[in-house]
Amino acid sequence: MKQSDEYYMQQALREAEKAFEKGEVPIGAVLVMQDRIIVRTHNQVELLKDPTAHAEVLAITAACDQMGAKYLPEATLYITLEPCLMCSGALYWSKIGRIVFGATDPKNGYGNKVSSSPFHPKTELQGGLLAQEALNLMQQFFKNRR
Amino acid sequence: MKQSDEYYMQQALREAEKAFEKGEVPIGAVLVMQDRIIVRTHNQVELLKDPTAHAEVLAITAACDQMGAKYLPEATLYITLEPCLMCSGALYWSKIGRIVFGATDPKNGYGNKVSSSPFHPKTELQGGLLAQEALNLMQQFFKNRR
Repeated sequence: MKQSDEYYMQQALREAEKAFEKGEVPIGAVLVMQDRIIVRTHNQVELLKDPTAHAEVLAITAACDQMGAKYLPEATLYITLEPCLMCSGALYWSKIGRIVFGATDPKNGYGNKVSSSPFHPKTELQGGLLAQEALNLMQQFFKNRR
Repeated sequence: MKQSDEYYMQQALREAEKAFEKGEVPIGAVLVMQDRIIVRTHNQVELLKDPTAHAEVLAITAACDQMGAKYLPEATLYITLEPCLMCSGALYWSKIGRIVFGATDPKNGYGNKVSSSPFHPKTELQGGLLAQEALNLMQQFFKNRR
């Protein structure tokens, strides 16, 4: 069944909540192909003690593994926060079809760090979907840590 | 035994040659801590069908796994080619102590894509070491593919 962008972002937010509960910076992602979620994941830097284990990288690796392909032109990634430079580069290499993100990240998001779009020319991009929900989770997380 | 930067870069070039022989874009890396190589690796995008499986990302993940730590401030990464945006971001998050790379990469290197240094402020950076050797491998690889 075809679902809305909001539906998929809600699912990504659920993943972010799971991260939150585990003491991970609360960022979640779902990867959708042909109206089906094929990957649900969240940031696992602390669990894996791996600074590359951001939700986007984990989603790309898992999706490519499932598809047996190194490119994902038919996929959409829903991610609760603006991707960082690493994840933007990973999304570039994956040639992903579409990226929908939630809140912007003035500190670590790619937007303030690149001189031109870091994504593949064919990748569609949309930001700001359910941004406040994603931001609330982040703010609550960092407030608790202080 | 303390070895020179050239020695370690030669080891990274050996890894690049292994990639070449397997039909992978020939980029190699070694990661050194306290005068010891703790990781030797090379690009494995084709083998793993994973666009994130660049030598740098594999090296960081393997080193963090070995150390049980998500930061690598005492480590030096020797990499035969200028890191791409993804790998630069991964190196940023790892807070790696030092990066030594070989050839510049005008097409995919970070240099042409960022508005300021993508690395952690404490990361030392050196480029151009045994650049011609790295470049020769790359040129031979892409010539063979045509």
